[in-house]
Amino acid sequence: MDSPWDDLALAFSHTSMFPFFDFAHYLVSVMAVKSQPGAVALAWKNPISSWFTAMLHCFGGGILSCLLLAESPLKFLANSTNVLLASSIWYITFFCPHDLVSQGYSLLPVQLLASGMKEVTRTWKIVGGVTHANSYYKNGWMVMIAIGWARGAGGAIITNFERLVKGDWKPEGDEWLKMSYPSKVTLLGSIIFTFQHTQHLAISKHNLMFLYTIFIVATKITMMTTQTSVTFAPFEDTLSRMLFGWQQQFSSSEKKSEAKSPSNGTGSLASRPSDVASDNVKKKLTKKNE
Amino acid sequence: MDSPWDDLALAFSHTSMFPFFDFAHYLVSVMAVKSQPGAVALAWKNPISSWFTAMLHCFGGGILSCLLLAESPLKFLANSTNVLLASSIWYITFFCPHDLVSQGYSLLPVQLLASGMKEVTRTWKIVGGVTHANSYYKNGWMVMIAIGWARGAGGAIITNFERLVKGDWKPEGDEWLKMSYPSKVTLLGSIIFTFQHTQHLAISKHNLMFLYTIFIVATKITMMTTQTSVTFAPFEDTLSRMLFGWQQQFSSSEKKSEAKSPSNGTGSLASRPSDVASDNVKKKLTKKNE
Amino acid sequence: MDSPWDDLALAFSHTSMFPFFDFAHYLVSVMAVKSQPGAVALAWKNPISSWFTAMLHCFGGGILSCLLLAESPLKFLANSTNVLLASSIWYITFFCPHDLVSQGYSLLPVQLLASGMKEVTRTWKIVGGVTHANSYYKNGWMVMIAIGWARGAGGAIITNFERLVKGDWKPEGDEWLKMSYPSKVTLLGSIIFTFQHTQHLAISKHNLMFLYTIFIVATKITMMTTQTSVTFAPFEDTLSRMLFGWQQQFSSSEKKSEAKSPSNGTGSLASRPSDVASDNVKKKLTKKNE
Repeated sequence: MDSPWDDLALAFSHTSMFPFFDFAHYLVSVMAVKSQPGAVALAWKNPISSWFTAMLHCFGGGILSCLLLAESPLKFLANSTNVLLASSIWYITFFCPHDLVSQGYSLLPVQLLASGMKEVTRTWKIVGGVTHANSYYKNGWMVMIAIGWARGAGGAIITNFERLVKGDWKPEGDEWLKMSYPSKVTLLGSIIFTFQHTQHLAISKHNLMFLYTIFIVATKITMMTTQTSVTFAPFEDTLSRMLFGWQQQFSSSEKKSEAKSPSNGTGSLASRPSDVASDNVKKKLTKKNE
Repeated sequence: MDSPWDDLALAFSHTSMFPFFDFAHYLVSVMAVKSQPGAVALAWKNPISSWFTAMLHCFGGGILSCLLLAESPLKFLANSTNVLLASSIWYITFFCPHDLVSQGYSLLPVQLLASGMKEVTRTWKIVGGVTHANSYYKNGWMVMIAIGWARGAGGAIITNFERLVKGDWKPEGDEWLKMSYPSKVTLLGSIIFTFQHTQHLAISKHNLMFLYTIFIVATKITMMTTQTSVTFAPFEDTLSRMLFGWQQQFSSSEKKSEAKSPSNGTGSLASRPSDVASDNVKKKLTKKNE
Repeated sequence: MDSPWDDLALAFSHTSMFPFFDFAHYLVSVMAVKSQPGAVALAWKNPISSWFTAMLHCFGGGILSCLLLAESPLKFLANSTNVLLASSIWYITFFCPHDLVSQGYSLLPVQLLASGMKEVTRTWKIVGGVTHANSYYKNGWMVMIAIGWARGAGGAIITNFERLVKGDWKPEGDEWLKMSYPSKVTLLGSIIFTFQHTQHLAISKHNLMFLYTIFIVATKITMMTTQTSVTFAPFEDTLSRMLFGWQQQFSSSEKKSEAKSPSNGTGSLASRPSDVASDNVKKKLTKKNE
């Protein structure tokens, strides 16, 4: 199996993230901070607060996974080089005369390159999280999925929490845990890499990393160039119909039978024997929903 | 001391919580989630958020005690069997056609049995927490009490915190740390088991577990059947009079002497010499209370 | 180098904090709790909540540094003697008849002595935090600074967070991370002691402890007696001009050139070549600030 493809995937999986990919990740994160309303004015008035927010955006996933594994949330500070790199990017982005960095970043090819490279770091983070969690809990596959997910997409949770503490953000019961697209694709990746790690997927790790990275980079670039958003909607619908569908069938047949209530005998066969019971349930449900 | 009673208590203290008692605990916790207004509608719209809330209710005490001992808050996920059991109960409770589980649970004997069995798990959790804390801090009796309490009754704190983050709950300064009855009885149990563990109570552990369990199960069932609430009010009053009473005596005698201010000489003997000083204090207090 | 000064500094650096200095620290902290509006009434109504707040004020720095190093936040409870000392002070302060403690504390010399002694404990905490962090992360100088800072001044963060959870405090985006004077002087101390620890400062630790303690005690007492507030404003201005000044220069020259816009040629030489570019930047900035 020493094919050129395999060689390429293996070489790719040994790529070091450090200077270039990390740089792209920090740049995209800091530009996200800067694009928030009022961020530039805040940086002038209170640079330390702005720097702190930028660091949370750059290292949020790592901080969350440390908290979940009961490691020091300051662990990222021990890697001085990366913190200094991120700080320099924050400094240049916010305080560069004539806003040169923002002007450069506003070119589409630059954005595409940086975002694509940022997605590559996501794969590395998921794999790192899954492996790290495995060293704590042998075969604790749920923990592995959770940590891979937290490291890959946890920055959003950390930064939302920061905004909550700062009073910038009022959470709504509905929005809580409603996942964004990056969050979903990271969860999917975390599940796949966990199953690969527990030997339930007959594919080598470097091949999987290569394929997953191509998938997320391609999706990201497609989304950015076509201004559309890729969703998992069909897949989610199928899954939700599999899991909750038989119940929804009852609900919809109830509704139908309700709509047809004058001609009572036209309900579907499946719904008829349960009509009385389901009415009780419906009343209960509506009571509880009030 | 090999009496039948002792044998019974010993056998009882070796009962495994796993399938049946844990099942009852998860059932009662999930039904508590379901009885919240809007919970059923939320489960249809956002199942992951609902599942997350249910897990916090089922494993909240363990999560809090892990946080307080600097262990991974995801430790409970490593025990896949229990998580799957709790998830199944959540799934059946929320999505069972015709709401069969809720209908079954609405029968009083079922509720009594489930609640009684849930209280049994409380004893096991307190003892587990106290023993676990002792393995970290030898003779750190305050830590032992706190961890026993957190594991036995900490779910309420975790779930309140979740509601705070979700924006469902506005805390009031007054309500903070105002303890509910389960919280108080768990604190009492935690203190008792800690003193037993540090050899300050001349009673064997299995006897104490048996007696404490009988006490909390009996109280719970009495409260549920008679719809009254057992309170520690007399005990608390005594304690608070012991601790703060002599000061309250002063306050009340001050009030009396104030009421009788026209006939200035009729104050009690104890209060008279301190009248001037206490007036100063009162003014300060009222100033500070404004 | 066995001068009397050196002997004095060495003896000073071996002073034990335990009974007297810790007492002063707890007293000042509890009096700060008591001076909050409504604190006395709350203590009568809900003593446990009041006690909890007092403990957070007394041990907040230690709790925060434990959280940041992934140690148990209950570690302070293991030191029963100190907790009992702090609890006694809380009890006497809040429930002493005729408010004797508050009356005694209202005398300026008592306040000066207590506050001075409290500042001494700050030095010990910073040094302890720096040394402790070094035992986790060899040469992780950022972690050392952060932990020294957290232990010395972290109580404010913990107590603000408690007020946030209790609903007493609404944070404003602007105030977040705006540091108070104690916070700044602790950060400075933490940086100095970290550099001393990593051998970048050619001064012995006991001498540095002595000098730093004299500095913070003297500043504190000056501030209390003269009712003025010492600020680092000139130092901060210099630093901020060094870091962000060249950019501000551009901004101000832009403003000037804007003011002089009718006579367009009078701008300073430095600002002229960049006028067009800087206008673009200005527009962007104002857009983003909207």
